[in-house]
Amino acid sequence: MLKGIAASDGVVCGHVFRYSEPDLSITKRSITNLDHELNRFHQALEAAVSEVEMIKTRATKNLGADSAQVFSAHIAMLQDPEFIKSVEDEIARQRCNAEAALATVVTDYGASLAKLTDNPYMQERITDLHDISKRVTAHLLGIKLPDLALLDRPVIVVTHDLIPSDTVSVDAKYILGFVTDLGGRTSHSSILARSLNIPAVVGTQTATADLATDEMVIINGTTGSVISEPTAAEIATAKQAMADRQANRVRLAKLRHHQTVTKDGIGVTLAANMGTANDIPSVLDNGAEAVGLMRTEFLYMDAERVPTEDEQFAIYRQVVSALAPRPVVIRTLDIGGDKPLPYLHQAPEANPFMGERAIRQSLAHQPLFRSQLRALIRASAYGHLRIMFPMIATLDEFRQAKAIYDDERSKLTTAQVPMGKIDVGMMVEVPAAAMLADRFAQEVDFMSIGTNDLIGYAMADDRTNQDVAYLYQPYHPAVLRLVDRIVRAGHAAGIPVAMCGEMAGDPIAVPILLGIGLDEFSMGAGSILKTRQLMGTLNVHELQSLADTVLNSTSTSQEVITMVQAAVPGILDVR
Amino acid sequence: MLKGIAASDGVVCGHVFRYSEPDLSITKRSITNLDHELNRFHQALEAAVSEVEMIKTRATKNLGADSAQVFSAHIAMLQDPEFIKSVEDEIARQRCNAEAALATVVTDYGASLAKLTDNPYMQERITDLHDISKRVTAHLLGIKLPDLALLDRPVIVVTHDLIPSDTVSVDAKYILGFVTDLGGRTSHSSILARSLNIPAVVGTQTATADLATDEMVIINGTTGSVISEPTAAEIATAKQAMADRQANRVRLAKLRHHQTVTKDGIGVTLAANMGTANDIPSVLDNGAEAVGLMRTEFLYMDAERVPTEDEQFAIYRQVVSALAPRPVVIRTLDIGGDKPLPYLHQAPEANPFMGERAIRQSLAHQPLFRSQLRALIRASAYGHLRIMFPMIATLDEFRQAKAIYDDERSKLTTAQVPMGKIDVGMMVEVPAAAMLADRFAQEVDFMSIGTNDLIGYAMADDRTNQDVAYLYQPYHPAVLRLVDRIVRAGHAAGIPVAMCGEMAGDPIAVPILLGIGLDEFSMGAGSILKTRQLMGTLNVHELQSLADTVLNSTSTSQEVITMVQAAVPGILDVR
Repeated sequence: MLKGIAASDGVVCGHVFRYSEPDLSITKRSITNLDHELNRFHQALEAAVSEVEMIKTRATKNLGADSAQVFSAHIAMLQDPEFIKSVEDEIARQRCNAEAALATVVTDYGASLAKLTDNPYMQERITDLHDISKRVTAHLLGIKLPDLALLDRPVIVVTHDLIPSDTVSVDAKYILGFVTDLGGRTSHSSILARSLNIPAVVGTQTATADLATDEMVIINGTTGSVISEPTAAEIATAKQAMADRQANRVRLAKLRHHQTVTKDGIGVTLAANMGTANDIPSVLDNGAEAVGLMRTEFLYMDAERVPTEDEQFAIYRQVVSALAPRPVVIRTLDIGGDKPLPYLHQAPEANPFMGERAIRQSLAHQPLFRSQLRALIRASAYGHLRIMFPMIATLDEFRQAKAIYDDERSKLTTAQVPMGKIDVGMMVEVPAAAMLADRFAQEVDFMSIGTNDLIGYAMADDRTNQDVAYLYQPYHPAVLRLVDRIVRAGHAAGIPVAMCGEMAGDPIAVPILLGIGLDEFSMGAGSILKTRQLMGTLNVHELQSLADTVLNSTSTSQEVITMVQAAVPGILDVR
Repeated sequence: MLKGIAASDGVVCGHVFRYSEPDLSITKRSITNLDHELNRFHQALEAAVSEVEMIKTRATKNLGADSAQVFSAHIAMLQDPEFIKSVEDEIARQRCNAEAALATVVTDYGASLAKLTDNPYMQERITDLHDISKRVTAHLLGIKLPDLALLDRPVIVVTHDLIPSDTVSVDAKYILGFVTDLGGRTSHSSILARSLNIPAVVGTQTATADLATDEMVIINGTTGSVISEPTAAEIATAKQAMADRQANRVRLAKLRHHQTVTKDGIGVTLAANMGTANDIPSVLDNGAEAVGLMRTEFLYMDAERVPTEDEQFAIYRQVVSALAPRPVVIRTLDIGGDKPLPYLHQAPEANPFMGERAIRQSLAHQPLFRSQLRALIRASAYGHLRIMFPMIATLDEFRQAKAIYDDERSKLTTAQVPMGKIDVGMMVEVPAAAMLADRFAQEVDFMSIGTNDLIGYAMADDRTNQDVAYLYQPYHPAVLRLVDRIVRAGHAAGIPVAMCGEMAGDPIAVPILLGIGLDEFSMGAGSILKTRQLMGTLNVHELQSLADTVLNSTSTSQEVITMVQAAVPGILDVR
């Protein structure tokens, strides 16, 4: 039995698919039969092409044509006559095996591309070149490259760590759960698992070493345990848990078209966070009443160049029209920090979380920012769109961003471009903005609390750094006091206050946030129905005094948790 | 004329000393006369030894024997018979010039030392090896290595940037001012200039390219300008400004033994920040009533290994006894972040400012922390010592640190070691601690606001990152509200609140901080007398309503500055 961090609730029993990089090291050897070797090379090329075609088809289906473009580039390279000729010549010249000849050619090509340092497109091609070289080499060596896009049966994915690009072309229905060596509750794998509503255990340290492909395991994402070689009794228990979970899903599904109302009749908006247009079905299926945060980073990060205004417009329009009449908050680009854009050539920073990210980057690179704002304003004609600026620290920044928005809006108005009413708001995730929320509330249309970053800055804690991850404490009274300040400031000025961090869907936090008076809770779509169910059992009037006591009389996170558990018995079972 | 950032006030006229790394690249060439070459090598060695001896003597005088130890190690290496023999053999074997032979030997030695990765002492030796090799090579090439310790006349130091180690052996009386290419008001060069009370202009971008050694310049650290090739009239004006400044110094010196009292009779404590025992004369000369922050990092960073408990005790005792009966706040180790300790092998962090630094590091490396606490407790018998923990974010952390202190104290009590009464307090520099200051105030003996970091975290701003340096805003209303919370929380609990960041000595901030009711202002010793002079002209009762207005009705730093200028005319002239 392995122990890890409980990252996404639920129990699942299934077979392991170990997703890791195989050993592709090659040995150079002499050949005697040239035709045979050329033939081997061509067979490997063809196999690679048909594999990439398959990945491309799945990526198109799952993520849309834009995201699949990179695979077209791969196919073009695999079919490039000049490239193929170079490898053939090298095999003939050196009388060596195709693997070694390919490696020589790739090294030469890579070196000449690497010289074009001021051409981001060519720099991207180096990555592509290595990707296709890896794939062809694998076929030559008879090694199967693991690829989540090639999954054709439901499995439990066991991997060292997942990065966003690993999951570009994944078909969710084949993933029963995740187990990873690294990561915490807020790592990419955990967030993905929660948004897919599948169990996950992360940070096990040794899962990839201990578990083998096709082995049967049971993972429990609520307790953080992984059982390998389970007994029949354990399997039976797990299947029962899965059945119970399924039954609860059916119960939850009935809440899909209900409004969110507390036991004492207070209405609350339950909204979804989304990352790509791909999330639209899940937002609808889970009965979201709004979208509290649509990120726009993936639009930029999955592409090999800045997306054009029209490309952006198409996506924004698709999202707001598919979800109309629900309000959709779209956040302007939040890059920098741990999300650099390769083609922007940002200099490395000593502390990227405290560097030129998000709105700071947008104000420093206005053409990019203006093109995004134009695309958003144009999309506003097709639904209920709201614009949100991330990482606002000072009023000067908000005023600058707003002035640029006003400028683009008036130009589009002059050009008689159709547009709808747009609220313009801000993320409150920098402590200075929380401290001055009353002043901001005079000038913004809405505020949305970004807890992931707010907690990080308030605690001076990089939550991705395992040595200090213990300081990432969402229930810490200092964090709750900041949240309370923001909500009170918004209400005093008559504007709504939302929360779009992980915390909004956390059952321990929900009673306190209801007591504080938060208006909108935006979370991974998979958490909406159970939060709606939970809220239906809670009395806001009782929670107001709970919140008062928590804010005024607690000193530590543990005291807060104990107090919530006492006030709302059984709250931990909701997770 | 060059423009830069005004970093330390005053005008000075003098000759440039450009402090930069010369080109020490070498060419390998064949030699015909072996004896001649061996002789060249020995002459260079001897010149290097006598140069390092001189540096060592100055470092001992300026900073004490401990800090000079590294130079003893350099001399030992330069006189090591085995090392000398290796270079001689290489000259003879390759029949090449001494520079090239030295380079070969240093590369070989370095490579074998580099293998001893688990021996921090040997890793330090690699740095030493390269230092001495550079020095001997310079002598062989007939190039004079610049070294601030070798200054023998008063100059204006022009340099790309200064790091703390550059100034280890500097003799302050030979430095008239600084001009740097990089840096901002809070960089090391700026802080050093203010603590030495000499003019400095930083961040000029091109000073080292534009100015040459021995050229005459006038620098104005109040306006941030550097005039090269000044006219006779400009020189006369500068000399007059220097004379005025000198006259004001004489006036200020008369305040040395006065207590600090505002115009309406409110007593305030003006304290000094200090970095090493070397600062004792300056603390006394500038009439500090206390030490609000004695850093202990330099004790650890200038050494090649962890200092022993006895070595630390000797320094702490020296400081508290020399300054008795003044209270001296000594801060436990604040390493990590931008101040790593080479011999501790901290893993690189993605965001070191939000990583395992200061108290987090101390709690994770208890033997180091316990030895420092024992040295402090023992030193308390010799004066008035107070202990302060840096970077406290949660009460759990303070309680853990305090429990370790109590444990060491009771062990020393049992051993009948003499000790005095010790107050144990905390830095408030993490926003979460500021938000919960009322709860902390129940458990700590005193609080001291560390503004440099508090501003950084509140604004999510790395002030050393030039792209976002504009967000480092000490007068921002959000920062002032945090300060106000902390002061009110301290007073409600009956404990004193100090400030030991740069802001405490800033003339724009002083009126607001007096209005808020801050008890102790701790600053670079050089700012104390002019702050005492300023405070004598201010009425706290008027400033309380200024502070109220600033806290409740301003939205930006500029509004705050305008309001302070209106309330205290002429405040900008104090700088």
